[in-house]
Amino acid sequence: MFSNITNKKIYQQVISQIQDMILSGKLKKGDKLMSERELSEKMGVSRTSIREALRVLETMGIIESRQGEGNFICNNIETSLIQPLSMMFILNNGSYEDILELRSMIELEAVKLAATRGTEEEFEELKKISQELTRNDKIYNKGDIDKEIHYKIACMSKNFLIKSLYKISLNLLEDFIINSRQKIVDYYHEEDTLNIQHKKICDSIIARDPENAYIYMKEHLDLIKITMEKI
Amino acid sequence: MFSNITNKKIYQQVISQIQDMILSGKLKKGDKLMSERELSEKMGVSRTSIREALRVLETMGIIESRQGEGNFICNNIETSLIQPLSMMFILNNGSYEDILELRSMIELEAVKLAATRGTEEEFEELKKISQELTRNDKIYNKGDIDKEIHYKIACMSKNFLIKSLYKISLNLLEDFIINSRQKIVDYYHEEDTLNIQHKKICDSIIARDPENAYIYMKEHLDLIKITMEKI
Repeated sequence: MFSNITNKKIYQQVISQIQDMILSGKLKKGDKLMSERELSEKMGVSRTSIREALRVLETMGIIESRQGEGNFICNNIETSLIQPLSMMFILNNGSYEDILELRSMIELEAVKLAATRGTEEEFEELKKISQELTRNDKIYNKGDIDKEIHYKIACMSKNFLIKSLYKISLNLLEDFIINSRQKIVDYYHEEDTLNIQHKKICDSIIARDPENAYIYMKEHLDLIKITMEKI
Repeated sequence: MFSNITNKKIYQQVISQIQDMILSGKLKKGDKLMSERELSEKMGVSRTSIREALRVLETMGIIESRQGEGNFICNNIETSLIQPLSMMFILNNGSYEDILELRSMIELEAVKLAATRGTEEEFEELKKISQELTRNDKIYNKGDIDKEIHYKIACMSKNFLIKSLYKISLNLLEDFIINSRQKIVDYYHEEDTLNIQHKKICDSIIARDPENAYIYMKEHLDLIKITMEKI
């Protein structure tokens, strides 16, 4: 059976046309869209419908409206996906176990890729960040450094889909990393275990040793899992 | 420094308020939103701004507008994320290698979970699907059965985040699975290799053997990788 095309609202049809032009490569990042007036005339729909469609595309991070200049194709989609994913998580009554599994999946792959593909420059940066973790002071928020290490590893995978998935899930992971760190620290009354684990992970990556990087990351994630279950 | 709140457009402020109510659990799936008129009065903004915000939320799969009944909180976010991710992929000049790595990451984790968590009923269904693949006829589109097996495995992981990520990426993966299957079939002049691989994967899952399920899935994905590189 055919689906009823008229069921699709006017503003949705406008969105589809613009999306199709992006997917087919006719519209590229940085390209300027026609004005609202021109779009309205070309597509034969009201300016209200055009404006509604543009609002949606703007929120989705697909177009950027620059005051006095017009609307441009951009690529802020990644950032715009964070809120919807968080809401999906809440509306599905998602659990910590779900997040931990997701995290394991992304990070165990990313850590192997990072050890294989990281550049000397990135290794240097990773070394610096991991040294901050073991610095003997209470000034720094160790939770933030912890997060920085994990994000750096995701970036070093050099796969923008893996990096994006990590970033998109960061909102979910973020609260989780800070919470679980605090719980582990409270539970063991010291941070050493965690710091040593991070050092081992970073050292293996820098030694271009994906097998050990994987093993130490797994050890780290297993500790979090076990501690979360105990608490 | 503080950021300029007035930079946020009215319709974006309306969206934020509704999103916050979902994230804090005040609005739940199935709940009816106030009417446009009531929202406009409560928030002190124009009905145009309210309508623009509702259009965005509708496209994001967060609300569902039922004719004559009003707007309801729903959870079609997963489906609504497919288009943005496809566009992100195009705008980033994504490569097949990126997709294959993403696919490996999701499926190697999912296959282990499926072997651990699958129910007898699901095993029965998986068996049926995998038998269709080896049936000696040309009527069926084997590519579709192939996809069905992989999606079934993702569902059997029982982790909605992993299943969602697989589904969200399905648009990217879909063309890819069909393309790569055809290439492998053309390259080897027969489908047997692929069918045997799928049978081994399914049999291991049904035998509740995550280690072998992982090994055979890896073998399958490696074959795809090698063939894609050769072709």
